[in-house]
Amino acid sequence: MEKKFIGNKEEDYSKWYLDLISKAELADYGPSKGSMIIRPRGLKIWNKIQNIFNEMLEESGHQNAYFPTLIPESFIAKEKDHVEGFAPELFTISSIGGKKLDENLVLRPSSETIIWNSFRNWIKSYKDLPLLLNQWANVFRAELRTKPFLRTSEFLWQEGHTAHKDKEEALKETMLILSYYKKLIQDYLAIPVLDGVKTESEKFAGAVETYAIELMLQDKKALQGGTSHYLGQNFSRAFDVKFVDSNGKEDFPHSTSWGFSTRLIGAIIMSHSDERGLVLPPKIATEKIAIVPIFKQNNKGEVLNYAEKIKKILLQKFKEKELILDSDEDKSPGWKFSQYELLGIPLRIEIGERDIKESTLVLSRRDTFKKTTLKIEEIIKTAEESLDSMQKELFEKRLNFYNENTHYIKKHDELLEFFKEEGGRGFAICSFKNEQKIEKQIKEETRATVRIIPLESDYYKDRVGNSCIISGEKNCDIGIFARAH
Amino acid sequence: MEKKFIGNKEEDYSKWYLDLISKAELADYGPSKGSMIIRPRGLKIWNKIQNIFNEMLEESGHQNAYFPTLIPESFIAKEKDHVEGFAPELFTISSIGGKKLDENLVLRPSSETIIWNSFRNWIKSYKDLPLLLNQWANVFRAELRTKPFLRTSEFLWQEGHTAHKDKEEALKETMLILSYYKKLIQDYLAIPVLDGVKTESEKFAGAVETYAIELMLQDKKALQGGTSHYLGQNFSRAFDVKFVDSNGKEDFPHSTSWGFSTRLIGAIIMSHSDERGLVLPPKIATEKIAIVPIFKQNNKGEVLNYAEKIKKILLQKFKEKELILDSDEDKSPGWKFSQYELLGIPLRIEIGERDIKESTLVLSRRDTFKKTTLKIEEIIKTAEESLDSMQKELFEKRLNFYNENTHYIKKHDELLEFFKEEGGRGFAICSFKNEQKIEKQIKEETRATVRIIPLESDYYKDRVGNSCIISGEKNCDIGIFARAH
Repeated sequence: MEKKFIGNKEEDYSKWYLDLISKAELADYGPSKGSMIIRPRGLKIWNKIQNIFNEMLEESGHQNAYFPTLIPESFIAKEKDHVEGFAPELFTISSIGGKKLDENLVLRPSSETIIWNSFRNWIKSYKDLPLLLNQWANVFRAELRTKPFLRTSEFLWQEGHTAHKDKEEALKETMLILSYYKKLIQDYLAIPVLDGVKTESEKFAGAVETYAIELMLQDKKALQGGTSHYLGQNFSRAFDVKFVDSNGKEDFPHSTSWGFSTRLIGAIIMSHSDERGLVLPPKIATEKIAIVPIFKQNNKGEVLNYAEKIKKILLQKFKEKELILDSDEDKSPGWKFSQYELLGIPLRIEIGERDIKESTLVLSRRDTFKKTTLKIEEIIKTAEESLDSMQKELFEKRLNFYNENTHYIKKHDELLEFFKEEGGRGFAICSFKNEQKIEKQIKEETRATVRIIPLESDYYKDRVGNSCIISGEKNCDIGIFARAH
Repeated sequence: MEKKFIGNKEEDYSKWYLDLISKAELADYGPSKGSMIIRPRGLKIWNKIQNIFNEMLEESGHQNAYFPTLIPESFIAKEKDHVEGFAPELFTISSIGGKKLDENLVLRPSSETIIWNSFRNWIKSYKDLPLLLNQWANVFRAELRTKPFLRTSEFLWQEGHTAHKDKEEALKETMLILSYYKKLIQDYLAIPVLDGVKTESEKFAGAVETYAIELMLQDKKALQGGTSHYLGQNFSRAFDVKFVDSNGKEDFPHSTSWGFSTRLIGAIIMSHSDERGLVLPPKIATEKIAIVPIFKQNNKGEVLNYAEKIKKILLQKFKEKELILDSDEDKSPGWKFSQYELLGIPLRIEIGERDIKESTLVLSRRDTFKKTTLKIEEIIKTAEESLDSMQKELFEKRLNFYNENTHYIKKHDELLEFFKEEGGRGFAICSFKNEQKIEKQIKEETRATVRIIPLESDYYKDRVGNSCIISGEKNCDIGIFARAH
């Protein structure tokens, strides 16, 4: 069924992924180690995601700001876990125009420190709280093993930073953002997610608790889709930010930070695409319909007129930029079909001479390749319905895949058996004692890590019990174990 | 007339500017030298400008991409004028995670080099041309004297980079973008501009020709609003990018680059604002109308209901985020009036008990402080008309100011007389021999520089002739001389 012109997904998933990114012109390699160029087709996906998330932020009273990229080295050192976590990944500037600096600057790996340094000037009273900021920015973390979109030395992201009067309000914010991430990824990116909390060893450098969204990709490996941190008073204390509460007492605000990145573009590719190329959820696709007229020299005018007519009808409901009408004479219809499949245009309309006579057209869906012949007057309704169904079915397909590859495991040897083979194996859900020793043992035995402790742990305890799979101790946590990108 | 709660503009313009930025919460200082934090009210202005310019780019077939911030030092050196121009301003990274790099990286001061390095992979044939890219990014140039928005060590900008089959097409692109800049600044930012070409000594490092937009600010100093460069084959040769033309012959593409930055926010402030605070052209303001109900304890419910009713009517035409309804009981109406004047909300609606009985309201314009009492049913029409008039009149006011402070000068001693006093003196238009020696002499004598040679030079030659004001030589260029920010 599938024309395999990109590369065999089953044989070498990684090669397929890199091929697709290159051929669909989503990204290219940059000149310095681990850097990436986001090409227009890739950036359009990011811009869509930005618009969706900006709306969520706006509705909930968050505002965008922009803080400097360059952070004095001493700032990073002020929160001890923060500096420990980030030190090996920092890009350091020690001179400007050839002149040595008195204090080195580092490129932001995350902006908690520079933002909390400013919060000291802006937060004085409980009336200044909550302070709800977000920024869209580039960040820099030197990485040993890099892969386009998933892990690069510079990436684009959003990072939210909020200050609150107490723990309760800050935790509520942490969970609100986690719910936004879930909504963004499920409802728009059409990828089912698990939400939960990270273990001590996997949490953010400087956080009290890190909540995360985990996705299962086509290769059955896990990908972290976004994190939302409750930071306690760690950064307000480190930067000496105090506020006077409504009773006149001084206290340190509680804070959160949260982020997702251009990694989500990788998640989309690795969730829906196939061996013909990119498959984009309609809500994420900028170009939604490609009209391909099939003509010869003797009927060119007629067929192109008809194509224009169809485009004009579609313009009643779609924007100019959502429609492609490809009347190029130098390329064959077959080439165009392949091209728009490669680029992930959700719907294709094919029209030929016969369609003119019968006032029909053929509508083809990118994900299922299903073709429907319809009357011209049905086009708007059918196109809209097809986009809706495609959005819905892409999600369902991923959900089925997730269910097929999620395993409830009650015994140690079952876990070992499950992870015996290399590569992505799916999610293993079991009970484990949440301490570093146990985590480490499982990691060594299986090369899988605990992704999260799911929020809905009770649901899973009904299935796998609550005794640690290693030590047998009772009343333990549930862990989602997987090999991860 | 004007309440002077920010600071006296006439006495100390610079202090007034810095006060306004701080009090209207547009920006704050960052911790490292010359760095700036763009606060939400400042960033909203930038986001508006981005949306307007993105539409212009989209209509003309330009696409956004994102290239890495970190550029190998050797890239910068490949174009000799480029490296000479930027070397003293470069931020250099020589280590990552404490480990020394084999080759230093620099933070982009502009992206010609890294982009042309990629163009080598993307441009093979004339069919790949024109290649029309733009990126929204942060750039880094160490500056000695900095000022928020106008000149900072890191700033946000857009930079366009295009490749063309020949000089003619590239020059056409250069001028198209210049016309977009003019349209953006005149029609949206409500600031009249002069367009022209830079002299040899003022052109961009690596350009064949630099075209620029010049603005006159309230302090009568000039500000460069944007530049559009024709780069010839300088970068295609430096990065060995060749294409095969339609006759099968190899050639180097001709290129352009062009940019404007968050400096435009400074231009808006310094064009329209007054001693009560920010004045924003309505097309640039996100929040357009502030409704301030005037109530006491005994009529609070009634007045607030009426305010809600007015807001609801306005929502037929305006978006939720364009309207503020301030029913805060802890702040007086007077405080609110001052606050929304400070923040630059274009229109204010005042309503009190009497208005309910008479179905009226008072509409007040931010720029003129003119108050109009109107019937509730006129509100949408009058609000829209007021915003339109304000947009138009702000521009006209600047145009009058520009005309009043633009002087035609025919003799050397008139020029010396004109620039005898310190500070902003306006524009002096005269004929001069376009060579470095003359430019240098005028600069030393007047501390004014030639901003541009205007495109409409014939118009000015009719007024000041074409003999060099210094040397008396005939057939010389027209220069716009001014002290600049």
